[in-house]
Amino acid sequence: MKNLTLLTDLYQFTMINGYFKQNIHNDIVVFDMFFRKNPSKGGYTIVCGIEQLVDYINNLKFEDEDISYLRSLNLFEDDFLDFLKEFKFTGDIYSVEEGSVMFPNEPIIRVKAPLYQAQLIETTLLNIVNFQSLIATKASRVCFAAGSDPVLEFGLRRAQGPDAGLYGSRAAVIGGCVGTANVLAGKMFNIPVVGTHAHSWVQKFDSELESFRVYANMYPNKSLLLVDTYDVLNSGMPNAITVFNELRDKGFKPSGVRLDSGDMEYLSKEIRAMLDEAGFYDASIVASNDLDEYKILELKSSGAKISSWGVGTKLITSSDSPALGGVYKLCAVEENDKLVPKIKISEDPEKITNPGFKNVVRIYNKHNKAEADLIILDDEIIDESKELTIFHPVYTWKKKTYKNFTAKRLLKPLFLSGKCVHEKKDVMAIREYTQNELNTLWPQYRRITSPEEYKVDLSEKLWDLKNNMISERRKK
Amino acid sequence: MKNLTLLTDLYQFTMINGYFKQNIHNDIVVFDMFFRKNPSKGGYTIVCGIEQLVDYINNLKFEDEDISYLRSLNLFEDDFLDFLKEFKFTGDIYSVEEGSVMFPNEPIIRVKAPLYQAQLIETTLLNIVNFQSLIATKASRVCFAAGSDPVLEFGLRRAQGPDAGLYGSRAAVIGGCVGTANVLAGKMFNIPVVGTHAHSWVQKFDSELESFRVYANMYPNKSLLLVDTYDVLNSGMPNAITVFNELRDKGFKPSGVRLDSGDMEYLSKEIRAMLDEAGFYDASIVASNDLDEYKILELKSSGAKISSWGVGTKLITSSDSPALGGVYKLCAVEENDKLVPKIKISEDPEKITNPGFKNVVRIYNKHNKAEADLIILDDEIIDESKELTIFHPVYTWKKKTYKNFTAKRLLKPLFLSGKCVHEKKDVMAIREYTQNELNTLWPQYRRITSPEEYKVDLSEKLWDLKNNMISERRKK
Repeated sequence: MKNLTLLTDLYQFTMINGYFKQNIHNDIVVFDMFFRKNPSKGGYTIVCGIEQLVDYINNLKFEDEDISYLRSLNLFEDDFLDFLKEFKFTGDIYSVEEGSVMFPNEPIIRVKAPLYQAQLIETTLLNIVNFQSLIATKASRVCFAAGSDPVLEFGLRRAQGPDAGLYGSRAAVIGGCVGTANVLAGKMFNIPVVGTHAHSWVQKFDSELESFRVYANMYPNKSLLLVDTYDVLNSGMPNAITVFNELRDKGFKPSGVRLDSGDMEYLSKEIRAMLDEAGFYDASIVASNDLDEYKILELKSSGAKISSWGVGTKLITSSDSPALGGVYKLCAVEENDKLVPKIKISEDPEKITNPGFKNVVRIYNKHNKAEADLIILDDEIIDESKELTIFHPVYTWKKKTYKNFTAKRLLKPLFLSGKCVHEKKDVMAIREYTQNELNTLWPQYRRITSPEEYKVDLSEKLWDLKNNMISERRKK
Repeated sequence: MKNLTLLTDLYQFTMINGYFKQNIHNDIVVFDMFFRKNPSKGGYTIVCGIEQLVDYINNLKFEDEDISYLRSLNLFEDDFLDFLKEFKFTGDIYSVEEGSVMFPNEPIIRVKAPLYQAQLIETTLLNIVNFQSLIATKASRVCFAAGSDPVLEFGLRRAQGPDAGLYGSRAAVIGGCVGTANVLAGKMFNIPVVGTHAHSWVQKFDSELESFRVYANMYPNKSLLLVDTYDVLNSGMPNAITVFNELRDKGFKPSGVRLDSGDMEYLSKEIRAMLDEAGFYDASIVASNDLDEYKILELKSSGAKISSWGVGTKLITSSDSPALGGVYKLCAVEENDKLVPKIKISEDPEKITNPGFKNVVRIYNKHNKAEADLIILDDEIIDESKELTIFHPVYTWKKKTYKNFTAKRLLKPLFLSGKCVHEKKDVMAIREYTQNELNTLWPQYRRITSPEEYKVDLSEKLWDLKNNMISERRKK
């Protein structure tokens, strides 16, 4: 990974310089990262990118050329630039486990650090986690629509730059895709890569039949043939079946066909009938034309005979919702060795932050289904042996009581006093974790459109703190 | 730049391996990159990312670890892997100048190379040029809406990964932004960086007034103050004016204020009145809340008193149109030392490609306004001393005749026989080129919604070639 230390907004430096000059740069502060809305009007968000966040923090260092560049801006004096040369992250970062399913307003990352450090990392922390979480979430929606059919990530050529293609593939696999066409992503993240041939392959030969035959002979165990270069039903399919018969005669099992244009519903039904009639019941039909979760739902409900889905542009850009609006807000400052809660008030009630040094607890029933989340102050303990009553933070008369539950604390340490305590995990292991997390959700929270809203309440202690702080501020 | 040689779709390798085994991998082919639709339903597209494409081609090289990875896929034999070790790009690449304004279906990049090389680079060529062109185009739309007001790029935290933030800033400046908040982009591309302070700065001090005072004393010549942390009209503005008066007394000229929330129309008018009443006629009002070209148009038409615009998420992701659908299609193959045109036929007339080895000519009138583009075969010469009649490619009775025009040939060499002949240009020089290009367009082509369609016709020779090829194919 290249050195991203300067990858931040200029105002972080103008502010850090100010704190330095005021000699308050070492004040300990706490920032939460959270988001206010799920992408695509969905019911949840998968947190992703934690591994790259850890790399970023581990590699923070101002090189001489970075300092020279900052000097060239004529905004900073030498004492400050010398101070930056010694920069090293010394704080604590807690995060939910990568691949966790989270909900609006919950702290997903918590940074406790000297003010200048917490401020420097804001922008890139958000950049990394916003993007990968967005794509993992989108992928999980597409996979949910596809049911048990495999979904493949095909979007590199339309991704928003090389990193978006690479980290987007990683996130897509964590969100549920079974593989990607992106070879470098396969190498970097040890995830499955997939791919067969393009229309240009077929065009390069004198006949479609010859192109199929050459391809199938070369990859007899991976003989997925693209059948829509000329005419799917009158040319592509008859030629594919000829070649599949030849393969079968040699003892191989044909893989199937890919369809990249035309009326997917009609064509897939005709293709299925042709394959079945020739006895290729197991040959799959891969579709790959401008797909997303909405189109897949519609095709499946119309009985289209598609067995796997290659999804490109609309997944890798999350096209209906191309940004996750994660924010990073001050929630406490240390004064005389004690953390004092801070709040940001707004006329817009949704924009009022949750104050204090917090954690999140998830309540599971005995069938391991997630029932609700509770944002708590970090020193609160949820006693599983007692009843737990939670209440809606606005309509406080809406209450619910749980017994026989288990409570899981979600924020765990990545860095303690600057030391990385995070254990690297394989992407495929994170993927498995995510799939388990998704299985703890009732399906109504995963619905593609108009999902139920999952309960995220505040502990009584946090609710009291927040409302007292709001009242006090309003008095001023 | 990291080595991106493996950044491609797996099917490129399965196909290249096939060509290698058939011993046709050295056949010379020609591919065009073009797009079928402008982003955001706009009237034009700015081509951007050429410099990074050149870097990518110059750095193509399979490292040992890349070969090992490809070997691990169990798809390729040693002879092919040994062949890849020697990979070197040896072809010709022509492109329009970076920052050019282009239109649907025009070749913007033309690759003539041995088949295996042309195929390998497809995906990353598209990735790089699609993204930067998308953002440069979006930025130019936002700047057009803002008229003569400066536009600043603020999107890093919501960009689709680090590269999207970096190359997106570069493209945004080429498209017309006057600067970016992204410090690393400033360093890498030598573009202006801008930034002042965040709400957290104000919150860190005991009072807003103190926070403003400290800030203004530190940066007396760049004293842009964020006035909406608590209450714009009752706290932010009175405090800002107090500090501005102090600055004026010390002989400095206050920069202005920034507004990041609330009703921009109403607040900006009130702010302007307060600043004017205090005699700060030159102090600017920067707005920065969820802006794009549509919102800016509306604010300007309602008389909002905003003098510069900070644009984030919706610019850096091109949120209403988050991908440019650039494609890369075979248009000719060399047979017996002659280029033979190739065409891709489709039932959808818009998807039929333009065959042959082509160039694009732009026709300017004597006032240097672009009148029309003509896609020609590369060996055609447009004689400026004669009349030129062009015709619509579908409604061929629609004709237009030009005299006293100048004709500019748009595709120029980047690589010749693998040798880079491209001269590196400063980003700010590309930006100037783009602004000049945009000035050659009549404003109706730049309109934000429902722009006029710019004329892109085919030369008679190309039109005949294409229609003959279609007729011949239909006969089969």
